Amino acid sequence: MPELRLNLITKEWVIISTEKAKRPDDFKSRKRGRILPEFVATCPFCPGNEDKTPPEVYCIPESSKWKIRIIPNKFPALDREAERARTNKGLRHSISGFGIHDIVIETPLHNMTTALLPLEEVVEIIRAYKKRFIEMHSDPRIGHVIIFKNQGTGAGTSLEHPHSQLIGTPVTPFQVRSRIEEAIRFFDITGECLICRIMKEEKEDGSRIIFETEHFVAVIPYAALSSFHTWLLPKRHVGSFSDISDEEMSDLALNLKIVLSKLYIGLSNPDFNYSVRSNRPNDAKSEYFHWYINIMPRLSASAGFEMGSGIFINNSLPEESAEYLRNVKVP
Amino acid sequence: MPELRLNLITKEWVIISTEKAKRPDDFKSRKRGRILPEFVATCPFCPGNEDKTPPEVYCIPESSKWKIRIIPNKFPALDREAERARTNKGLRHSISGFGIHDIVIETPLHNMTTALLPLEEVVEIIRAYKKRFIEMHSDPRIGHVIIFKNQGTGAGTSLEHPHSQLIGTPVTPFQVRSRIEEAIRFFDITGECLICRIMKEEKEDGSRIIFETEHFVAVIPYAALSSFHTWLLPKRHVGSFSDISDEEMSDLALNLKIVLSKLYIGLSNPDFNYSVRSNRPNDAKSEYFHWYINIMPRLSASAGFEMGSGIFINNSLPEESAEYLRNVKVP
Repeated sequence: MPELRLNLITKEWVIISTEKAKRPDDFKSRKRGRILPEFVATCPFCPGNEDKTPPEVYCIPESSKWKIRIIPNKFPALDREAERARTNKGLRHSISGFGIHDIVIETPLHNMTTALLPLEEVVEIIRAYKKRFIEMHSDPRIGHVIIFKNQGTGAGTSLEHPHSQLIGTPVTPFQVRSRIEEAIRFFDITGECLICRIMKEEKEDGSRIIFETEHFVAVIPYAALSSFHTWLLPKRHVGSFSDISDEEMSDLALNLKIVLSKLYIGLSNPDFNYSVRSNRPNDAKSEYFHWYINIMPRLSASAGFEMGSGIFINNSLPEESAEYLRNVKVP
Repeated sequence: MPELRLNLITKEWVIISTEKAKRPDDFKSRKRGRILPEFVATCPFCPGNEDKTPPEVYCIPESSKWKIRIIPNKFPALDREAERARTNKGLRHSISGFGIHDIVIETPLHNMTTALLPLEEVVEIIRAYKKRFIEMHSDPRIGHVIIFKNQGTGAGTSLEHPHSQLIGTPVTPFQVRSRIEEAIRFFDITGECLICRIMKEEKEDGSRIIFETEHFVAVIPYAALSSFHTWLLPKRHVGSFSDISDEEMSDLALNLKIVLSKLYIGLSNPDFNYSVRSNRPNDAKSEYFHWYINIMPRLSASAGFEMGSGIFINNSLPEESAEYLRNVKVP
């Protein structure tokens, strides 16, 4: 029998559909085993083609032998040179398209993926996120910064060279504000942070935990939106990603690399998105908000029902998916 | 320069991206011109294969020469035989998967599409929606009924035979409740229904109107989420689709068929979703809520940014898309 489960962060119900349920193995990617080359002459992100992108914001290390390169997006969703100007005409409320849109080129190697990157390079990617997250937020016109990665065409990327993105928007998205409100409601009733409490219950239960390191827990949410939907939760309560310490960055890199490796091996390199869900640096000391990372393998498509209702249908059991990933051996 | 526009129904901002803006012509579907046959022996929805589906809820007309057939989904998201039982254990809130999931087989012809159906058959599809919408809601265990159509694999359907679906859920989705709350806020401040007011301003402005019939207006929203996102708004203020009159059903069928024909011709048969956004029959007399139909051609994919923020990026100008569709001639 199917079951509806409540996602307490969003207050949306998810249908865990047992009628259509698939075994974890069934989710293995059916992508052709196309072998990518290390270097592609026409790829704007490959070394030697630096003049095909706007000049970098910075490189690590600062030399032509870079390992990570942060550049302004050549085709940005929002324009860093624009004014932030408001117009209200009747029901038409608009803001001119000011914003900051960076690309993090994660490695010089065209055919690399996070699961296979050396650990110290994953640490540097996270350090680059932190630096740009704080820098973008230092502009008072920025309301929210989203850090995200689209891996594979099924996850919405058009460029195969490994990269992630940061977008600073001139507004706080309603979705973000709605989650903050729900977190406050929970805190008002219980005096506890919702994520701290979720983490405590998940650790006691154990059935949905994938992997735990010193500072982070990887868990499939009780009301996972889709198959293998995963959260990386920092154990220390803090409202903003900006507050992450050096030690926590190394540990997050390890946890992220292991979880992505388990997906890479267990599901044969699926397309995925991840994003950092964080409040602003100014809200780091919030009692009720707790930043985390959301990983979403793209194993099924959403359709009219999800769009029309906000209710997702998940064709797998979170407990079964977590057990499967726990058992995937990674080097 | 890009522009952010506020969707007053959801309170989400949309980025209208002029940097990446495409001309309307660029959105034409690149699908292979695969010609489907009228009948497919293995299709469970084709005439003669009635025994491959559960027995019908009803047919129009009630004979083996049916034109529309409503059946329970053989692989339902929710189970009409289940109890609606609540369990609350710590943070784990669940409801056993009671619900009603119907399929409306819209025509006996495997290769048909709404744009090409005779008008009187589109009227009958809408009549079937109304009948089942009211019947499902007559069960007090049903909190919300979503009527939707997934057309094409890009819109999430696995069966090509023309069909739409109704799902009655045992809960009211958070997304639906959030829209109702925003409608109440608008009513509290202005004493007006938000949709009535949008319709008034859109008719005065004219630039985003696609097509108008006696009882319905088809308009591209000011803050359209994606290219050619369209609303069909009933001119008469009423909170629930259940209240639609016979005359309005005929007129809605005409408007829907014309708009879908303009998409079919103008964009070369794109994949699309539509859904009916409606309150319950009991809320038909609501002063603040106004039902409507949402049409979403699937011309681009959402990725990590949309998932992580709720902000959509639309690569086309709503005014330009509306003008393009206004000028598409339909038979």
